[in-house]
Amino acid sequence: MELDSLSDRILNGDRRALARGITLVESGRADHRAQATELLTRLTKEGRQALRIGLSGTPGVGKSTFIESFGMMLTGQGLRVAVLAVDPSSTRSGGSILGDKTRMERLSREKNAFIRPSPSQSHLGGVARRTREAIALCEAAGFDVVLIETVGVGQSETVVSELSDLFMLLLAPAGGDELQGVKRGIMEMADMILVNKADGDLKSAATRTCADYSGALRLLRKRPQDPEGFPKAMTVSAVEEHGLAQAWEEMQSLSKWRRENGHWEVNRATQAQYWFEQEVRSALLARLATPQARSEMERLGSQVSTGQLSPSVAAEHMLSALVAG
Amino acid sequence: MELDSLSDRILNGDRRALARGITLVESGRADHRAQATELLTRLTKEGRQALRIGLSGTPGVGKSTFIESFGMMLTGQGLRVAVLAVDPSSTRSGGSILGDKTRMERLSREKNAFIRPSPSQSHLGGVARRTREAIALCEAAGFDVVLIETVGVGQSETVVSELSDLFMLLLAPAGGDELQGVKRGIMEMADMILVNKADGDLKSAATRTCADYSGALRLLRKRPQDPEGFPKAMTVSAVEEHGLAQAWEEMQSLSKWRRENGHWEVNRATQAQYWFEQEVRSALLARLATPQARSEMERLGSQVSTGQLSPSVAAEHMLSALVAG
Repeated sequence: MELDSLSDRILNGDRRALARGITLVESGRADHRAQATELLTRLTKEGRQALRIGLSGTPGVGKSTFIESFGMMLTGQGLRVAVLAVDPSSTRSGGSILGDKTRMERLSREKNAFIRPSPSQSHLGGVARRTREAIALCEAAGFDVVLIETVGVGQSETVVSELSDLFMLLLAPAGGDELQGVKRGIMEMADMILVNKADGDLKSAATRTCADYSGALRLLRKRPQDPEGFPKAMTVSAVEEHGLAQAWEEMQSLSKWRRENGHWEVNRATQAQYWFEQEVRSALLARLATPQARSEMERLGSQVSTGQLSPSVAAEHMLSALVAG
Repeated sequence: MELDSLSDRILNGDRRALARGITLVESGRADHRAQATELLTRLTKEGRQALRIGLSGTPGVGKSTFIESFGMMLTGQGLRVAVLAVDPSSTRSGGSILGDKTRMERLSREKNAFIRPSPSQSHLGGVARRTREAIALCEAAGFDVVLIETVGVGQSETVVSELSDLFMLLLAPAGGDELQGVKRGIMEMADMILVNKADGDLKSAATRTCADYSGALRLLRKRPQDPEGFPKAMTVSAVEEHGLAQAWEEMQSLSKWRRENGHWEVNRATQAQYWFEQEVRSALLARLATPQARSEMERLGSQVSTGQLSPSVAAEHMLSALVAG
């Protein structure tokens, strides 16, 4: 397909074209990369913005069910919803976090929804760029909400929070008063904590867990981007579809406040700056990943290990080889 | 001074020449760097090795007093002792960790001792290389023991442990049964924990603290480089000079076991490989630190912040500028 046509169709909200565009930005081929850059440059000129909602939750908290129920509610209000996944582990597990679309059967049949399984990939830097570019394509395609989900393995919460306007932490009810399992650093990223499964036997446990996290959130340092009462914890039931409308109201009121108080633009500018610097660094370090560089690193490294070369001298040789190569 | 003469004098154990050699490896000037590389290449050919003992302890645990007492004991046995410092905070504090040599007045007057205050510096990568090279010079100068001390700010314990054959953690007696303050990651690096101040009023607290840490060490995963009973905790009194001989015996028996069982060589080879890789990475990233690169990063960064350029496209521009520059 010509870029002109692809670009037009994406701007018209065509989901098949959007999917092709995302495949293009995910490609590792140099010619595809050039096309992807050209496509992104054209599309971002339009300046369309979606509400980017990051969602982190470990397996078992009911993330798919939440996204399906929450997404159906939004499409029911006439909003267009895209779902993307950041899954740093998919190389290892060999599969995609979203599997086929059967995990979200109803939502995947909605014409106002777009679900993109995460590609298999090699490292988080690449994941971040591809996801960032996929988000940009979804925004160009006129989606109102982009949900970016992650299972929260390793650094993926940080990646997702640096890609999102709002960051949600989805939790399951805990037994007793255990806050363990959620690291302080993750708590500090959250704009809202949603305790899911507030239904049936788990309802009172969910209420208690929510109260515990409300208390914990109050102990965190106040951030300038938070209005009174945020970050906050709420209970929801994705299965019974309880609390979803309230959660959405809170998200909207938070994002409205941030827009009106200048935090929205500052946050996006800071994120863009962050990704620019990350990308420059990882592109520089990628020069060590070529087959020639790897074999030279190995050759010099073995001389370092046996003491024939000092680490510094070997590093100087390596740098010269990179310049010459 | 000619390199020939400097090199010969260092090999003869001349402390003034050693000090000049270290000043040379600490210099940021390109011509000095070339000379330093040449000097190191000549000296390391000799293959002399010292026992490198890393020592971490926060201010107040009596680190200087310990080093002075321990160092005096070693020189009393006819051993030659060098003391180096890794202090990532000295730029900020403006001063050196070792201050003038008055902190270790007796040891600094010993002819078999060499004390080198830490230079002021800008980042830990540079500190690590300079310290590694200073160690190599001390080894070439025939020192038997090189003590590398750090206050343990940020990542400096990791740096010191990656530079050492043995890593000691010096602690003060704690009130009650508090193990807090020592992070698990630091505990896992330690070959021995020395609870200092086991004298006077603090003697029983030191014994209790030592027992607590002995218990904590037993809970850690067994490492292949540890013989039965290691890592271990002991009490010492630097002021009363108690326990120092026992600590030294344990260090010797541990290092003997590691030599005999092949762990010594493997550890040094692994460390050299680690520093080689670190240095290649930091040298690559240093290309972003030149004045031209900084100003280009700033120019592109502001276009990224305002949304005129996407982070990826700006990164591509930056990389092209680096190649051209």
